[in-house]
Amino acid sequence: MSIKLYSFWRSLATHRVRIALALKGVTPDEVVTIDLTKGDQHGAAYDAVNPMHALPTLVDGDGPPLVQSLAIIEYLDETRPDPPLLPADPRGRARVRSLALMVAADAHPLMVPRVREYLERELGVPEAARTAWCRHWIATALGALERRLSGEAGTGRFCHGDAVSLADICLVSQVAGAGFFSVDTTPYPSVRRIAEACSAIEAFATAHPLRQPGAPTTA
Amino acid sequence: MSIKLYSFWRSLATHRVRIALALKGVTPDEVVTIDLTKGDQHGAAYDAVNPMHALPTLVDGDGPPLVQSLAIIEYLDETRPDPPLLPADPRGRARVRSLALMVAADAHPLMVPRVREYLERELGVPEAARTAWCRHWIATALGALERRLSGEAGTGRFCHGDAVSLADICLVSQVAGAGFFSVDTTPYPSVRRIAEACSAIEAFATAHPLRQPGAPTTA
Repeated sequence: MSIKLYSFWRSLATHRVRIALALKGVTPDEVVTIDLTKGDQHGAAYDAVNPMHALPTLVDGDGPPLVQSLAIIEYLDETRPDPPLLPADPRGRARVRSLALMVAADAHPLMVPRVREYLERELGVPEAARTAWCRHWIATALGALERRLSGEAGTGRFCHGDAVSLADICLVSQVAGAGFFSVDTTPYPSVRRIAEACSAIEAFATAHPLRQPGAPTTA
Repeated sequence: MSIKLYSFWRSLATHRVRIALALKGVTPDEVVTIDLTKGDQHGAAYDAVNPMHALPTLVDGDGPPLVQSLAIIEYLDETRPDPPLLPADPRGRARVRSLALMVAADAHPLMVPRVREYLERELGVPEAARTAWCRHWIATALGALERRLSGEAGTGRFCHGDAVSLADICLVSQVAGAGFFSVDTTPYPSVRRIAEACSAIEAFATAHPLRQPGAPTTA
């Protein structure tokens, strides 16, 4: 079965799915670039694939398009179980999913293009304040992650024990977002330590936004 | 094992967990009210339970507190599998989770208290524009749900076939949020139809925000 990924280098949700694919050893047969800076996501071609006009979308074989990064990653984990991206025990799974949702639900949706556009067009928020908005929610999430990761017994070399999980995927995408918005990550040493441990893994390194087609050569 | 739920009548994330508990036939042994309108979530007592100062938190027996509504519901589904809240097939599970995330990640985090407070205090957005903001994201999510539910073959009596799932739980919480903000749901007939089918189920009816302690007698 062929795998097609609709992607954009800067999309943090796509970044998460790229990491999961790489960890599973799955290379998409086709990567379709949807340039969010040009509004490609609102075009008729992509509308037929993803009526929410959001990234990413994954098409696995002849199935309908799969959307929402966490739902896609859980699907990949269920259909390609090796290596697992969730622990086996329900409490561990709940901990990993809750760490992941702190990024993918509490923080990231506040800084996606449609929200920044609403702030600009409907509320007249100037660019500096829009950037401060993004930085605030990135820092809030990093601070909350740091507090949990530094205080909870479940933390190991990675977010949950010594195996990579969905939580690490989300943490790494959040740290990449911090880079885009020049948020200092020094106050979050556990987050930094885990992000560095991940970046030493080939699957994380190749999935990085700045290594994708269309990315600027400097951040 | 005793179950303790930290709750507030108006919290839509807690609403979701209440529905799941009721569907599973689980009655919390203790419900602790965290009054979001009084800032109870920022108090020292709750900080020790949930350092993110968000609702809900579920404590199941002697385990550490469980946070993030979707992670809690998946945990409940794994530890109390009857009735299941996710279909058995990976594509069906991905569809249900993606519908759920359209509410719990794309829409709801944009209208929680901390975001409305930032709009007011940091950006000086007046009350009418803050309400318009909430209405906009509620309507955007309802429109996206409507488009998928009316167009996808997987939709049945409920969001996915004829059995209640995590997607219905999230849909119902979104419709409750529409009620709080007086968003007209007439343009979303599939959403309305499914919400009405859910409201005929006792577990959904008893979990409704307006039937919780502290709720106003009229919406």
